Amino acid sequence: MTSDSIPAVICTVDVVLLTLEQATLKVALVRREREPFAQALALPGGYIHAQDDVDAQASAVRVLRDKAGLDSPYLEQLATFTGAVRDPRGWSVAVAYCALVPSAVLAQAAGRVELVAVDALPPLPFDHRQIVDTAVLRVRSKSQYSSLPVHLCAEPFTLPQLQAVYEAVLGEPVNKVSFRRKVDELAMLEPVVGALQTGGAHRPAQLYRVRPAYRRQLSLSARGL
Amino acid sequence: MTSDSIPAVICTVDVVLLTLEQATLKVALVRREREPFAQALALPGGYIHAQDDVDAQASAVRVLRDKAGLDSPYLEQLATFTGAVRDPRGWSVAVAYCALVPSAVLAQAAGRVELVAVDALPPLPFDHRQIVDTAVLRVRSKSQYSSLPVHLCAEPFTLPQLQAVYEAVLGEPVNKVSFRRKVDELAMLEPVVGALQTGGAHRPAQLYRVRPAYRRQLSLSARGL
Repeated sequence: MTSDSIPAVICTVDVVLLTLEQATLKVALVRREREPFAQALALPGGYIHAQDDVDAQASAVRVLRDKAGLDSPYLEQLATFTGAVRDPRGWSVAVAYCALVPSAVLAQAAGRVELVAVDALPPLPFDHRQIVDTAVLRVRSKSQYSSLPVHLCAEPFTLPQLQAVYEAVLGEPVNKVSFRRKVDELAMLEPVVGALQTGGAHRPAQLYRVRPAYRRQLSLSARGL
Repeated sequence: MTSDSIPAVICTVDVVLLTLEQATLKVALVRREREPFAQALALPGGYIHAQDDVDAQASAVRVLRDKAGLDSPYLEQLATFTGAVRDPRGWSVAVAYCALVPSAVLAQAAGRVELVAVDALPPLPFDHRQIVDTAVLRVRSKSQYSSLPVHLCAEPFTLPQLQAVYEAVLGEPVNKVSFRRKVDELAMLEPVVGALQTGGAHRPAQLYRVRPAYRRQLSLSARGL
């Protein structure tokens, strides 16, 4: 399809699948089956299949299903990593995606992925370390002013549970009053009618879920937390 | 370089080169020399040359030189546009970049590019309309909380001139006091020692330029204008 004078470029997708486990942001790694770097832990990734995939986002969905056995409702293009030396097979383009799921969703992937704290990564092949770092920076930055962290939170949840998720992602405490104001402003939640969390030492707390409009896209605010 | 079972994917870069002319945000378009869409106005773009380019950013630099005859100090990866149908030649990956230059720099490109207001685009081939719209949205959003618009401003400039650039990009007036506070917070400028703008009806104004540290990267603030 390309003209003869244009050497082929290797086109892949890589997915940074993030979750929270014990209040720690973790990335899902898979053990590579093939060379290069066979047996190394790496990001789930693979070639774009021009005959099957309608676009690179579809390639990322397919890779997540094949390598981790799951679908991520939130899947965003992160950045594209390119060049002559990042892949020993040749000049390559890796379109990187970022996926966020609650840790319960990763129970489906048990035995297929290893969860590793993003602040304690092992050496990774290719430029996967740089790709993970880019994703973490993006997620932390976006969490300041958007509904992004809700995708890490299993529904339904209470507001204190959601606040704890924001705090874990941001790595710092969040003021309760400004957090509640931000949640109102983002208008991303709806109460689950009649559902209260009971059984704790405190009075029952209202349970919430994400409004349908924000299940696959973000609500943004002009100002950070 | 790819295995025989993986069909080739067309790999290109496209550059959204933006400038301000008469307080209007404009994009530089070039007339395509070859099919598909020969003679149509389109974004400057071209194949990644795996034998020459160290990465896709280098491809974008080369394309800007070849098609517009200029270098853009500010050149940022925007997003990657992919899929089976966006290019009639086949499955394609276009890594899009955004460049910002003062309009005086485009004088070098006279006769090679046409400047068109981003709010009055002609029909564009491929998905170039979507690429331009993505760039404009990104630039307007980033201008709220970063030094990005300084790259549209010929140096040296006065603070009122820079404020006018911010207002043109954002498409709305900016409060002078909060603008001055933001400029201080971003710490992106340095006065040009001994240089004052004279000759107007007002008292002479200090001239500024961008600090070297922020000539190729942004200064960011946590809060918007």
